[in-house]
Amino acid sequence: MAFQLGSVATKLEMLSTSDHSSIVSMNMFVALLCACIVIGHLLEENRWMNESITALLIGLCTGVVILLASGGKSSHLLVFSEDLFFIYLLPPIIFNAGFQVKKKQFFRNFITIILFGAVGTLISCAVSRKSLKSWILVPWILEIIWVSTLLLVSVSFFILVSLGSDRFCSVILAIGAIFAATDSVCTLQVLNQDKTPLLYSLVFGEGVVNDATSVVLFNAIQSFDLSSINPSIALHFAGNFFYLFLASTLLGVVAGLLSAYIIKKLYIGRHSTDREVALMMLMAYLSYMLAELFYLSGILTVFFCGIVMSHYTWHNVTESSRVTTKHAFATLSFVAEIFIFLYVGMDALDIEKWRFVSDSPGTSVAVSSILIGLVMVGRAAFVFPLSFLSNLSKKSANERICFKQQVVIWWAGLMRGAVSIALAYNKFTSSGHTQLRGNAIMITSTITVVLFSTMVFGLLTQPLIRFLLPAPKQSTSALSSDPNTPKSVVVPLLEHQQDSETELGGQDIPLPASFRLLLTTPTHTVHRYWRKFDDSFMRPMFGGRGFVPFVPGSPTERSPR
Amino acid sequence: MAFQLGSVATKLEMLSTSDHSSIVSMNMFVALLCACIVIGHLLEENRWMNESITALLIGLCTGVVILLASGGKSSHLLVFSEDLFFIYLLPPIIFNAGFQVKKKQFFRNFITIILFGAVGTLISCAVSRKSLKSWILVPWILEIIWVSTLLLVSVSFFILVSLGSDRFCSVILAIGAIFAATDSVCTLQVLNQDKTPLLYSLVFGEGVVNDATSVVLFNAIQSFDLSSINPSIALHFAGNFFYLFLASTLLGVVAGLLSAYIIKKLYIGRHSTDREVALMMLMAYLSYMLAELFYLSGILTVFFCGIVMSHYTWHNVTESSRVTTKHAFATLSFVAEIFIFLYVGMDALDIEKWRFVSDSPGTSVAVSSILIGLVMVGRAAFVFPLSFLSNLSKKSANERICFKQQVVIWWAGLMRGAVSIALAYNKFTSSGHTQLRGNAIMITSTITVVLFSTMVFGLLTQPLIRFLLPAPKQSTSALSSDPNTPKSVVVPLLEHQQDSETELGGQDIPLPASFRLLLTTPTHTVHRYWRKFDDSFMRPMFGGRGFVPFVPGSPTERSPR
Repeated sequence: MAFQLGSVATKLEMLSTSDHSSIVSMNMFVALLCACIVIGHLLEENRWMNESITALLIGLCTGVVILLASGGKSSHLLVFSEDLFFIYLLPPIIFNAGFQVKKKQFFRNFITIILFGAVGTLISCAVSRKSLKSWILVPWILEIIWVSTLLLVSVSFFILVSLGSDRFCSVILAIGAIFAATDSVCTLQVLNQDKTPLLYSLVFGEGVVNDATSVVLFNAIQSFDLSSINPSIALHFAGNFFYLFLASTLLGVVAGLLSAYIIKKLYIGRHSTDREVALMMLMAYLSYMLAELFYLSGILTVFFCGIVMSHYTWHNVTESSRVTTKHAFATLSFVAEIFIFLYVGMDALDIEKWRFVSDSPGTSVAVSSILIGLVMVGRAAFVFPLSFLSNLSKKSANERICFKQQVVIWWAGLMRGAVSIALAYNKFTSSGHTQLRGNAIMITSTITVVLFSTMVFGLLTQPLIRFLLPAPKQSTSALSSDPNTPKSVVVPLLEHQQDSETELGGQDIPLPASFRLLLTTPTHTVHRYWRKFDDSFMRPMFGGRGFVPFVPGSPTERSPR
Repeated sequence: MAFQLGSVATKLEMLSTSDHSSIVSMNMFVALLCACIVIGHLLEENRWMNESITALLIGLCTGVVILLASGGKSSHLLVFSEDLFFIYLLPPIIFNAGFQVKKKQFFRNFITIILFGAVGTLISCAVSRKSLKSWILVPWILEIIWVSTLLLVSVSFFILVSLGSDRFCSVILAIGAIFAATDSVCTLQVLNQDKTPLLYSLVFGEGVVNDATSVVLFNAIQSFDLSSINPSIALHFAGNFFYLFLASTLLGVVAGLLSAYIIKKLYIGRHSTDREVALMMLMAYLSYMLAELFYLSGILTVFFCGIVMSHYTWHNVTESSRVTTKHAFATLSFVAEIFIFLYVGMDALDIEKWRFVSDSPGTSVAVSSILIGLVMVGRAAFVFPLSFLSNLSKKSANERICFKQQVVIWWAGLMRGAVSIALAYNKFTSSGHTQLRGNAIMITSTITVVLFSTMVFGLLTQPLIRFLLPAPKQSTSALSSDPNTPKSVVVPLLEHQQDSETELGGQDIPLPASFRLLLTTPTHTVHRYWRKFDDSFMRPMFGGRGFVPFVPGSPTERSPR
């Protein structure tokens, strides 16, 4: 272990930023980050814009300025290092997503989704038993996003198989994984966790697990030669995926529980608030690095570490530590997101990549259009059927998701963001350069899709919501300081969903009652058993709400963001 | 400007940590940081130890393990990059020092110190008028630390001058600057800000300004060829120092006021707590980077930025942002400090450096002993005279600093820490390697002094305090959770100092009444004028306590650390 450590030496020496030009660019970058925050604040009232779009636009403008100043040679301050992204920027974003997510809603949904997935997989297996290629559909069991990924994958797959070009399978699977990653930042700005809990957790929770699964799927694909698919390879692939998924989750849960145990047992807050905060940060980061060490998915690990930490560890620390961790993690995540979008905006104008594209503009436009089309079809393919199934389990008509609301759910998840970009760079570049023509086209197409979806879909989200879901009798709330923001517009959506669980013995059951019971009963049972286990074993051991001598609360209480 | 940006590209690519060995060492380093925090907590009861010593010892042990595992080739996980230190680790430490310092105490002291310095410089100028070398004493005007630095410098200087080796002047001045930096971390663990405000601000404030001045002085020395000192060069040197000092301070103040103005004017907390926190962090960091850009002292800039931010900006943000910034900055600083000590511990065993030393162990031991001796003499030379002058201005006998207390003040500032190490690396290595024999000896001597002073002086501080200042009638306090800690032992020290100001028209004036008035009146007047200016112009403009619609408070309220 220690024998290899010498090589790190040279690495970290290169981190040197003492020469003046790098200080100039660091200054500009930090100043641009500040500008994004201030401008983002000023545009908060204008609900057409959001932070991501602001950062993208500022990045584009800076890119133009640099391009002109450098005489068309370069358009960015920093070269995108995939490692910078995966080692420093992504972990805080994903950890914070796990830390702030509403666990109850998330897990209730999670189980429902697994049920959906299992039924869906059984059906598709039965349908296409004769074709062994349906093995690729197995991961569908896991999550909702799989449906969209696999639709993308299988559409491209069947097109290519019919064209006889089996050798592109790996690339196509990778593209599927790249574009399966929804941008969860935009979702946050459209939906309100307190008012539409189920809708929020559906779209946001989906986005988060989505990012993680994309990365896992992507890594699994990378390590396999899928040019000739046969049952044993497909089985191996599925097995590898499950191993990655389960081992990563387990590592995250263990790291979270360990931090909870240490902080509870040693009662670290007795002497120092700072030690608690430092320990939580370092343990979370350690879990991510450990996952990378064992070739697991750091994203999944740190996401589940965040969930466990918010359920146990967060309740074991002092009041100041709670406020601090809640906001400090959110701030780090926020800055990392702006950083990425600012960078993407600057990088979009990079000359080197577009040189290849300028030879064949037709191909590039065609690829981008096909990708955008596939993203839209892929999302429609699971939002509408799932909403239909969800509606079947509803008692009264006003609890159902109407068609207009389904359109909003579909639309809110169309944006593709930083994770897509990072995965595309990972797949299609070697050390920051795009030598091959095909790779250059894939990178530029990814950038085009991200820019287009963020700008066009992002800008149109608010007007669409206003058009489709006009504000009902102005519901004033203590949480939303400005009742004119669209956050309060989405109120009627699924607001009473969680009540349906407690009234399960119900009286006015609509038509497919048996189907509804099939969907809600297992969820309910699993949740009850979990609560029992949690109360009788986990909480006395690892702390948590009510098991430590502090005022109860939750990091998921929404502050105005 | 933008033309140079290309070179950053290659730099940041090198930041790549994708290969496995670097992930292994990052894991180990993060795990060691966690271990330091937990062990530091466990040893909190044992007041012989402190976090710095723990981190040093863990670093040493790890160094031994790696040394054995690598067959004597290497002893560290990371090569010390001076840039890593100056760009990432030092700014949070110094910013936090400025942010948490008790401004009132600090500035009252500051002015007193300037008075002392001016009188001292006039005297020494008059005494050594015939020797033009006394020009080097001009910076004495500025701060208390100057006295210790200059004592070190001038003692070494006169020794060398008498030996006729003028060409070593630059090195000797640099050594003076390197060892002038007190370790403020250790001070924090000995003294209590609430109970002994003046004593705390004397030693801690000294330590902080100290670090900053060391760096400024060091940079000023670096850029001058002092091998042949003549009046014009000395004057130029003094002018350069004043320019650095004033411009850096001004930049920090402007950055702090700008952040206060933006946050107050735009009322950013209305929409987002995270934006406020992010903006404060980024503006502070921007001020540091701007100072580096203009070849100023980033340390001084970020220190004054911290002071201004805690006086204005901190009062303009929401309650949650206040708690978050207070603890998040402290945590970042805490982690950075442990990081440095852990590294120093590991680096102490580096083979390459000791190889040179093993040829002539006598020289190395002699150099280290002389340095430790000079540090002790240098500190004694200003603590005891200053205490004597301070005692002259005291009314009653029990307010005076008795000899035992003077010894504690002297002892608490003897430890040398991370700043000394960083400056030594800066001066005596080129890109992480120590080729020259003389340089290797200086590096190893610095490490020896830091290890010795932290371990021996640090470990003996608590017993010394117990011995010299036995606990009086157990004063229980709400702030100190454990009344047995020595924090409450130092209670009688200078506790009523601040009252002397309000009772200035006093009745029972002791012998040198005129001298006492000379010392206290200007301080009092300057402070009153500042308060007037602050209340009538600055606060309405930039916010601050009472000028924003929030509950008043202060980031300097001590939480158990």
